Amino acid sequence: MRLVALAGGVGGAKLIDGLAAHLSPEELTIIVNTGDDFNHLGLRICPDLDTICYTLGGIANKETGWGRQDESWRALEIVSELGGPNWFRLGDRDIGTHMERTRRLTLGDSLSNITSDFCKAWGIWFTVLPVTDDDVPTWVYTETGEIPFQEYFVYHRCEPRVTGFRFENAESAHPAPGVLESLQEADMVIICPSNPWVSIDPILAIPGVRQYVDSLPVVAVSPIIGGKAVKGPAAKMYTELGIEPSSLSVYNHYGNLLDGFVLDNIDIVQVEHIQTQGIKTLVTNTLMKTPDDRRRLAKEVLDFCVNLIN
Amino acid sequence: MRLVALAGGVGGAKLIDGLAAHLSPEELTIIVNTGDDFNHLGLRICPDLDTICYTLGGIANKETGWGRQDESWRALEIVSELGGPNWFRLGDRDIGTHMERTRRLTLGDSLSNITSDFCKAWGIWFTVLPVTDDDVPTWVYTETGEIPFQEYFVYHRCEPRVTGFRFENAESAHPAPGVLESLQEADMVIICPSNPWVSIDPILAIPGVRQYVDSLPVVAVSPIIGGKAVKGPAAKMYTELGIEPSSLSVYNHYGNLLDGFVLDNIDIVQVEHIQTQGIKTLVTNTLMKTPDDRRRLAKEVLDFCVNLIN
Repeated sequence: MRLVALAGGVGGAKLIDGLAAHLSPEELTIIVNTGDDFNHLGLRICPDLDTICYTLGGIANKETGWGRQDESWRALEIVSELGGPNWFRLGDRDIGTHMERTRRLTLGDSLSNITSDFCKAWGIWFTVLPVTDDDVPTWVYTETGEIPFQEYFVYHRCEPRVTGFRFENAESAHPAPGVLESLQEADMVIICPSNPWVSIDPILAIPGVRQYVDSLPVVAVSPIIGGKAVKGPAAKMYTELGIEPSSLSVYNHYGNLLDGFVLDNIDIVQVEHIQTQGIKTLVTNTLMKTPDDRRRLAKEVLDFCVNLIN
Repeated sequence: MRLVALAGGVGGAKLIDGLAAHLSPEELTIIVNTGDDFNHLGLRICPDLDTICYTLGGIANKETGWGRQDESWRALEIVSELGGPNWFRLGDRDIGTHMERTRRLTLGDSLSNITSDFCKAWGIWFTVLPVTDDDVPTWVYTETGEIPFQEYFVYHRCEPRVTGFRFENAESAHPAPGVLESLQEADMVIICPSNPWVSIDPILAIPGVRQYVDSLPVVAVSPIIGGKAVKGPAAKMYTELGIEPSSLSVYNHYGNLLDGFVLDNIDIVQVEHIQTQGIKTLVTNTLMKTPDDRRRLAKEVLDFCVNLIN
């Protein structure tokens, strides 16, 4: 079975890490959100790509989920000393990644090509694809105006009330080489437990991606557990947009894309409604606290996928 | 007495440091070469400005003369790991300087304004001015083609034989705010023991600077001692350009700009020829190995200057 996983952020990276423990590089391709990418302090920063690659490469910071393990903060200390912005936490080793990526982008190289080479350097044999090589920045509409995603997410700590989102240039962007091809060759798509609004929607907004995904059996894993997001602003966003934050709302979000849905034991009361839509469900412990959790959940999701298409 | 010093590189920074020990911020303005500045790994790097500011701020690496003390190399290790260029040694704390400078330049701020703010952050009360806010990169003509300065200087370790230099855009560049003004208010100019070809000539190439300097009494300190450069390729450049590397050649280089010339005891045989041109000379120990050497030489140069104009 060939799988494509759509992912972004720390929750997505954890399930990807679990899936990688059970699958060969031929069986799993990962398509990653690039809506969070931005230019900062001269550098091109791709938070979701890096979180997933650092996690797969076994070099991620295990406490935070983002950034690198064994990190130092000496460059950023100087930026602060000079009165510059230190709200986006860039470690010295992480900065090395951004410097080399920025160098190659400046020379005209593509993000997908650079990511492929970085993966090789980190011993990652899975194909990790940015959904697009084009710049498609996510903007967050809030009651106080439109804010670039990272300013909303990190600088403002998700405090402004959200009224909507915009994926700038998405309509004119091109899927990165391999994105549509991997979907064409796939038997199934897994939507990771990432933020539906700002991690998965920006992937689906790239022309062709939603249609290709729609043509395949799709299983989503809910990032909302008991009405709360494990990490990040997904639940807060649902509330501010006038939708009750719940697994059911995540299910409704993806609508008729889905053929299967994975939700937490705590949300079992919501299963009946979903099943009446003819959708298969897997109810299990979806919280991934340890590496074992990641592998266990990934195995259950994979078994669920196999049952779904057989 | 108000002085303007023209400087670039480690030798220049040493004399500036010595002068700063004897003068108030009102008495000394430093105009710095920007021909070495370049874009690398996404960052805007200004080696001469940083060497002079780090030295004046007491935060320079005392062994190398360039870069910061108490430095680490973690970002650059990652760049190497990813197959990127590590020939230009960027330390983590140094990178912080470049990141904040690049951020502000990207927002449209000027190099002179940024440098002024960085000096305040580092407790430097002397005015340190980049000679221009425009991009005026030095190119080195060699037998194997034209090479950007840092590639010649660092990547190729000054190995290619030099046939000439080009200061790109110099004719259309504007002196940075304060450059001509400080010369207008000055009583005297000191040309530091920096490389005449690639540290001082690029300063004099900015429109207006040579004329303003020429209208003032000028003292130059030879960077060549006993036919050799203390550091860097000045002597090698003279040889390759068919000129004997010597204090006399440095004197001839600056030609009729000069009113006084400072050279090392070892070069005393060259004094007579210079004096016959009606130029005052100071013959002393010009090698600056220790902080005491810097202060001692600076004091002697200052006394020489005072005598020259009285």
